[in-house]
Amino acid sequence: MSETGQWIDQIAWNSDGLLPAISQDHVSGRVLMMAWMNRESLQLSVEGGYAVYWSRSRGQLWRKGETSGNRQKIEAIRIDCDGDTLLISVQQEGGIACHTGRESCFYRRLDGDNVWQSTDEVLRSPEELYGSK
Amino acid sequence: MSETGQWIDQIAWNSDGLLPAISQDHVSGRVLMMAWMNRESLQLSVEGGYAVYWSRSRGQLWRKGETSGNRQKIEAIRIDCDGDTLLISVQQEGGIACHTGRESCFYRRLDGDNVWQSTDEVLRSPEELYGSK
Repeated sequence: MSETGQWIDQIAWNSDGLLPAISQDHVSGRVLMMAWMNRESLQLSVEGGYAVYWSRSRGQLWRKGETSGNRQKIEAIRIDCDGDTLLISVQQEGGIACHTGRESCFYRRLDGDNVWQSTDEVLRSPEELYGSK
Repeated sequence: MSETGQWIDQIAWNSDGLLPAISQDHVSGRVLMMAWMNRESLQLSVEGGYAVYWSRSRGQLWRKGETSGNRQKIEAIRIDCDGDTLLISVQQEGGIACHTGRESCFYRRLDGDNVWQSTDEVLRSPEELYGSK
């Protein structure tokens, strides 16, 4: 992490100009998801107070919750010792971060039989969140 | 995420054969750090019960806490909806995850003046953790 320049210039972006951003519920401490930000999305997040990511698959800004309504209101932004990962404390609107309709994207746990077991219930169906077309 | 094959084959590794692994204190919920794992380090983590990462800078396995003693005992491993990020609940031995001697690597917060402010105290000096030379 650079010690000079504006806060955003101090970040150690990767070779694609991105860094991982972990979001965490600011009350429960539940880790909700990990997504990527570029410089513009981070700037928009800080200015607007709601998380904006960079969608690597779509190659465009991703205003989290724009369709589903499940926006992430930013309470705090932290950076790690290397300056290459963010931890964002959020108020998760609707209580659902995952596109599967669950609270957290981390809803599967490796169980004793080495199988990824779903442990969380679907709170709202994806059809309900994104429209049934 | 693939639905077939062994649990480790279902993971969506990136083009370098790595995936990000977020570690979280299993009691406090504090997010401690984000590091990378390759297939071998994840296998060793699961088999041994302690977190082993892949150091991208050193290009070798990184047995977390090998020098400092601050190992991470694994309580649970979760995977996200895309199958490309892990969340590992750990018991952080020594209460220190960061090489700076702090509990968490995320010890700086963006304050109201847009400055990264350190908010956490150093619990043990790096010299003490890694030797004074």
